[in-house]
Amino acid sequence: MDLQACAAQNLERVREQKPLVHNITNFVVMNYTANALLAIGASPVMAHAPNEVREMVSFAGALVLNIGTLTDDWVASMVSAGERASEQGTPIILDPVGSGATRLRTSAAKQIIRHTKLSVVRGNASEVLSLQDETSTTKGVDAIHTVADAAEAAKTLAGELKTVLAITGPTDLVTDGSRVIQVSNGHPLMGSVTGTGCTATAIIGAFLAVDQDPLQATATALAYFGLAGEVASENASAPGSFMIGMLDALYTITPDQLEAGGRFEVLSG
Amino acid sequence: MDLQACAAQNLERVREQKPLVHNITNFVVMNYTANALLAIGASPVMAHAPNEVREMVSFAGALVLNIGTLTDDWVASMVSAGERASEQGTPIILDPVGSGATRLRTSAAKQIIRHTKLSVVRGNASEVLSLQDETSTTKGVDAIHTVADAAEAAKTLAGELKTVLAITGPTDLVTDGSRVIQVSNGHPLMGSVTGTGCTATAIIGAFLAVDQDPLQATATALAYFGLAGEVASENASAPGSFMIGMLDALYTITPDQLEAGGRFEVLSG
Amino acid sequence: MDLQACAAQNLERVREQKPLVHNITNFVVMNYTANALLAIGASPVMAHAPNEVREMVSFAGALVLNIGTLTDDWVASMVSAGERASEQGTPIILDPVGSGATRLRTSAAKQIIRHTKLSVVRGNASEVLSLQDETSTTKGVDAIHTVADAAEAAKTLAGELKTVLAITGPTDLVTDGSRVIQVSNGHPLMGSVTGTGCTATAIIGAFLAVDQDPLQATATALAYFGLAGEVASENASAPGSFMIGMLDALYTITPDQLEAGGRFEVLSG
Repeated sequence: MDLQACAAQNLERVREQKPLVHNITNFVVMNYTANALLAIGASPVMAHAPNEVREMVSFAGALVLNIGTLTDDWVASMVSAGERASEQGTPIILDPVGSGATRLRTSAAKQIIRHTKLSVVRGNASEVLSLQDETSTTKGVDAIHTVADAAEAAKTLAGELKTVLAITGPTDLVTDGSRVIQVSNGHPLMGSVTGTGCTATAIIGAFLAVDQDPLQATATALAYFGLAGEVASENASAPGSFMIGMLDALYTITPDQLEAGGRFEVLSG
Repeated sequence: MDLQACAAQNLERVREQKPLVHNITNFVVMNYTANALLAIGASPVMAHAPNEVREMVSFAGALVLNIGTLTDDWVASMVSAGERASEQGTPIILDPVGSGATRLRTSAAKQIIRHTKLSVVRGNASEVLSLQDETSTTKGVDAIHTVADAAEAAKTLAGELKTVLAITGPTDLVTDGSRVIQVSNGHPLMGSVTGTGCTATAIIGAFLAVDQDPLQATATALAYFGLAGEVASENASAPGSFMIGMLDALYTITPDQLEAGGRFEVLSG
Repeated sequence: MDLQACAAQNLERVREQKPLVHNITNFVVMNYTANALLAIGASPVMAHAPNEVREMVSFAGALVLNIGTLTDDWVASMVSAGERASEQGTPIILDPVGSGATRLRTSAAKQIIRHTKLSVVRGNASEVLSLQDETSTTKGVDAIHTVADAAEAAKTLAGELKTVLAITGPTDLVTDGSRVIQVSNGHPLMGSVTGTGCTATAIIGAFLAVDQDPLQATATALAYFGLAGEVASENASAPGSFMIGMLDALYTITPDQLEAGGRFEVLSG
């Protein structure tokens, strides 16, 4: 199936199946991501207690881990929930917010990678490339000058980490180590709203719950989220009304609209 | 007094008296419920420190407890604040978010019930019915097929727990164990915004601060909140603009509008 | 330079330099203040882990401390971040939310004042005046009846605490102990949105990162934030749409508009 058609199908499935998405995420975006998940038709739950997360994730269709306002005890809960999800085969997506910026964030992200079986990691280029270990053959972020460089580095690292990687920005790159897909939906105002990256991650989580191919789930979710930005920009030119318009667009975009509007390019694979 | 007139009076009193409503609530809804309480004219405060909650609640007109993102230490603060409020005769409302879904949530809700003198519990049918203990004669949620079943079960449980129970959904049921009131305001989009249930709970809290009859305070607050959904739906057909429109409506609805628009039916009592 | 021109220059500098503003703030306002900082062109980061805050603040142009939902461990992180910022000469602003209302809040605010070198404290009159110690010669809040009284009390206390004080309300007073500036921008609906005070504090933080004179940075930031309220009120008459309109206005107001619209009066100095 082509990616446009697949995007439409994934959106339909989310609205029909209303998957429970368990989020252990940061304080800044909890409300907005919960509203985004409801707007797309999924069922969000936020739960982080160490004596609850294993039970909660056992009901979930996907687990979203986000270290945006981490402390050691929250990371421990993320690892605990992630171990249980890994045992069950529940897909997990990690958003390594700020990895590479502080030691705590980098080491927390690597700890989660070591202890869980991740389906996807989504971040910006510096966050994602900070996840390589000392033995990695991936180029550092400073050596990346072109989209081709980034695609090559992401591809190598995805193979090493055995997960899909999504590097998002003005255009998004998604790779599983062999295939690389570029997604070109989106709008510049998304950079002026807090937590749009985190929200993309949560929406990928919902798509992972209905599509067994994590590369495809990730690329189609990013196209949908980017298209919501494009639709919102038709009626909003400043970030307050734009962020509300994005929630509206996530709710109103139809599968047909997504099929017509998704912009994918398969770079390799 | 009839319930329509009482609703108008309660709204007037909240706007005049601006009661301080102390919330120990979940991270997802803190901002939205604080804004809703301000929009109706009340004064919200959020405070959860174990060495502060007893002092803070001593100034409050009502205490709102919500276990949506609970951990053991937050539950301990809720119990501590609740004990002090009970000593003072300050009304307390519990929102047992997710009770019945995980052991931690069910046991936390029951612990709060045991240690405090609750005025009201508000939740959906499965949350509220999960609160019965082993000796309860209430039917389980699986045996509830009609509004009459739900009303009967809630009535029995309210008597056992010695509190008003509000089961909210497309229509709301409120009972103190003898009287049962049905409230029919609301709009389907309320289900696509996170924390509308929690916000209903907070608004009931504000009404409890100005009306000594908790059954009446609860029913009238639910009518007001549901009417805000109806008013918001006149200008919004998607959840982002709808949730902002609800805050606007809570602010602009007049007592006269509420008196005309509240839809109550006394089912028994 | 006059204050109008200075306001325009500070806004231009924030948009050019995009200063990193490190916030250790309360759960209620995290999302809204992050969005406000993005809307003005700054780069917000929220981080509170004890083993991260010293590293994070070392990258920041300003540190914002806000005790709105404090617990002891958060206050310890605020002190730790504040000590590092003080060593580096990074400007710090404190928002002593609720100081004077509970013992915990008053003592936390005083602890932060003792251990850090604050550039600014922003609060309402009762919060700010609660910060005096037993030896203070400042009048208590009950003895303050006029703007002149408040200005005099703030001036004395600012000298004692060796920081700029901003007492905000329908009109704002800013003083460094010798000079006193009154800022008259704003709109009454700002009182019906949660966290507008906290957001003013965060925006002052961003201005402190680009203007070495904290009195001037504070007064100009308050004029900008108040003007955003005025602009938002042109299209919104209720708090939901008003709070979204404020984010839009923070993004769209130009330096020229701010220069024309800022209303300052130098009361002394």
